[in-house]
Amino acid sequence: MAQFLASELENLGAEVEQRPLDLPPVVLARYGNDKSKRTILVYGHYDVQPALKEDGWATEPFELTVDDQGRMYGRGSTDDKGPVLGWLNVIEAHKRAGVEFPVNLLCCFEGMEEYGSEGLEEFIQTEGKEFFKDADAVCISDNYWLGTEKPCLTYGLRGCNYYSVSISGPGQDLHSGVFGGTAHEPMTDLVHVLSKLVDSQGNILIPGIMDLVEPLTEEEKSLYPGINYTMDNLHESLGSETSIHSTKERTLMARWRYPSLSLHGIEGAYSAPGAKTVIPAKVIGKFSIRTVPNMESEDVNKLVFDYVKAEFAKLNSKNTLNVWLQHDGKWWVASPKHWNFSAASKAVKQVFGVEPDMTREGGSIPVTLSFEQATGKNVLLLPMGSSTDAAHSINEKLDKRNYIEGIKLLGAYLHYVAEDSE
Amino acid sequence: MAQFLASELENLGAEVEQRPLDLPPVVLARYGNDKSKRTILVYGHYDVQPALKEDGWATEPFELTVDDQGRMYGRGSTDDKGPVLGWLNVIEAHKRAGVEFPVNLLCCFEGMEEYGSEGLEEFIQTEGKEFFKDADAVCISDNYWLGTEKPCLTYGLRGCNYYSVSISGPGQDLHSGVFGGTAHEPMTDLVHVLSKLVDSQGNILIPGIMDLVEPLTEEEKSLYPGINYTMDNLHESLGSETSIHSTKERTLMARWRYPSLSLHGIEGAYSAPGAKTVIPAKVIGKFSIRTVPNMESEDVNKLVFDYVKAEFAKLNSKNTLNVWLQHDGKWWVASPKHWNFSAASKAVKQVFGVEPDMTREGGSIPVTLSFEQATGKNVLLLPMGSSTDAAHSINEKLDKRNYIEGIKLLGAYLHYVAEDSE
Repeated sequence: MAQFLASELENLGAEVEQRPLDLPPVVLARYGNDKSKRTILVYGHYDVQPALKEDGWATEPFELTVDDQGRMYGRGSTDDKGPVLGWLNVIEAHKRAGVEFPVNLLCCFEGMEEYGSEGLEEFIQTEGKEFFKDADAVCISDNYWLGTEKPCLTYGLRGCNYYSVSISGPGQDLHSGVFGGTAHEPMTDLVHVLSKLVDSQGNILIPGIMDLVEPLTEEEKSLYPGINYTMDNLHESLGSETSIHSTKERTLMARWRYPSLSLHGIEGAYSAPGAKTVIPAKVIGKFSIRTVPNMESEDVNKLVFDYVKAEFAKLNSKNTLNVWLQHDGKWWVASPKHWNFSAASKAVKQVFGVEPDMTREGGSIPVTLSFEQATGKNVLLLPMGSSTDAAHSINEKLDKRNYIEGIKLLGAYLHYVAEDSE
Repeated sequence: MAQFLASELENLGAEVEQRPLDLPPVVLARYGNDKSKRTILVYGHYDVQPALKEDGWATEPFELTVDDQGRMYGRGSTDDKGPVLGWLNVIEAHKRAGVEFPVNLLCCFEGMEEYGSEGLEEFIQTEGKEFFKDADAVCISDNYWLGTEKPCLTYGLRGCNYYSVSISGPGQDLHSGVFGGTAHEPMTDLVHVLSKLVDSQGNILIPGIMDLVEPLTEEEKSLYPGINYTMDNLHESLGSETSIHSTKERTLMARWRYPSLSLHGIEGAYSAPGAKTVIPAKVIGKFSIRTVPNMESEDVNKLVFDYVKAEFAKLNSKNTLNVWLQHDGKWWVASPKHWNFSAASKAVKQVFGVEPDMTREGGSIPVTLSFEQATGKNVLLLPMGSSTDAAHSINEKLDKRNYIEGIKLLGAYLHYVAEDSE
């Protein structure tokens, strides 16, 4: 894939470099070097999730198959080969039409995204002052519309602090018949501690956490009612009607701009089907907090550690508790009023005839923050695919409309970027 | 092993039958048929736990190896081949010494004990009126001394009610970034429910459970202080000092005559090492209650089900809860004043020069209750091995003293059984 991309880019007239990481190389390309033009850095990835027909695909996952409704099925169609090809198509379209390319384009296409982008963070930091140094703004097309009809621009992501809390006692697993009732059981203590973190309505019970959250302004609040989303959309994606909130506004805020705490599981306890009468000697609870402005990781950690230790102390158990951060990733919010967003917004209006929804996402896309920090420039998430594209699942697809109009959108965006700078 | 046992018993003059279950046969034998003598039914098992030298054994697990301190190492040495051979040795000793055998002996030696005694329950019920019908009492040598020095007679076992509680919501596992904060999470609900079952001091929080427990009488209480056991013994077997109670009496009561509730684990949640940001769609908590007189299973079930449902209802979650009994096994308590116990007690005094400790066990040995119910006769647990024998572990052993004196004990027991009946 890297070779294919590099040669396509070379054929289009770009200067291409392949930077080997330990594994598949990052393909870097520059298209145009006109100091009088703005320079846009675009990111995508050419690797995909694994796929086998026997996983349940209706078609061969690695043969693009288009059905009569224009759905283009194939692994990577939407995540993220479609959008990557979109950038190449934009260059090609300009060449074929004989239209001058409106900006200088820097491409950063990696091949390890689905494996955690190993090594990319450091690479981006280094190239921030080298290959990427001319970038005036960044555009990433690697997420999705909120629904299926209306394009969106994404200006925020939540961060994630992932914690482990271990409780240990006996030297080895015990038989619950022989020892039940005589020893403090780590699993009992852990369940008590975990039950103090979050309630069934999703409220985080750790004192001080909510005080870190940036208050909702009237201006931000006004963005929500117009967004093309319904509670039915949520229920469809949940596969159930077990939603906490009753309105789309409160639901989207809970997903985008408020923190959440999820309990993921317990390591060391009995997790198989059936029945086993074990008292586990050491259990490790896993939970994470999705973070939002202005929650600084260190502040969150301190609140979590102090509270977990205090709740454990209340149990009067002779067992031993440890709590630590497994990893953290910071939240990201860009200014949706920056010219980078304005250009994209005009492009949506031009191509689709509507104002885009201004959205955030509940999950994290770490590369976003890496580019912002390395370049110091505004980053825009400009999705091509829709919410039903099934990235990472069987029968991944990209609608032909999203692809074709998406190429127009990427091209129009670059033109509005140039127009705005004149 | 079944063939070996059957031919050994035949060589000793017993009438032997092999009753095939689906898998290894039950070896039934009768030795003696004198209507003027009492008939004792003995149970043991000739199968063993798996063992490989590479598991960490110091010697070949299936070659008996005796060290200079008389420790006889080998898989099955104490659990339960040693005691089974003990019964054969008793017959052989009488033959060689030309001493009349004091009782009629019925043997029931199975080969599926370590695999859950599949099919044995029904077999015993059927043979209760057939092969076992003459039995005047039952003796099982398949448990252990409380310590290493003093023999014991075991007159009680706890039962076990094993429960599952499932909570489900979304149609599939969810990404905690995308959905955290918007949907009721089954794991959160489950942890809250489980935290209401038992506290860190081992107190069962389900209302009504403790009301079912037979009150402690002064007579029973008086059995505890003399028992050869210390808190150090407990700490050694725990591998830690995380005991709940501070005295041996309270510890032994917690283990033998009071119920306990253990949380074993959660099925469906993330249980591997590392970090995964999943919201599990369905989680199943597993817990069990060790039961004691007079807790009837149906009463316990009703209290558990009602309470779990009530606690879940308090959470105001839209998720769905189910709670059910996976399996139950009843507690067992025999009268330690029965002639069966008196005979064993005199035998201990004769062979070891001490009064045995009268003990119960916290775990269950289901065959005990099966024999009691099928024969309607008193059942005695008369252990041969000691607490350090490491049944089911690497380096399983039986001390030569326990084996040789144990054979004498089994023989003396039969003589006192006969003497008492004269």
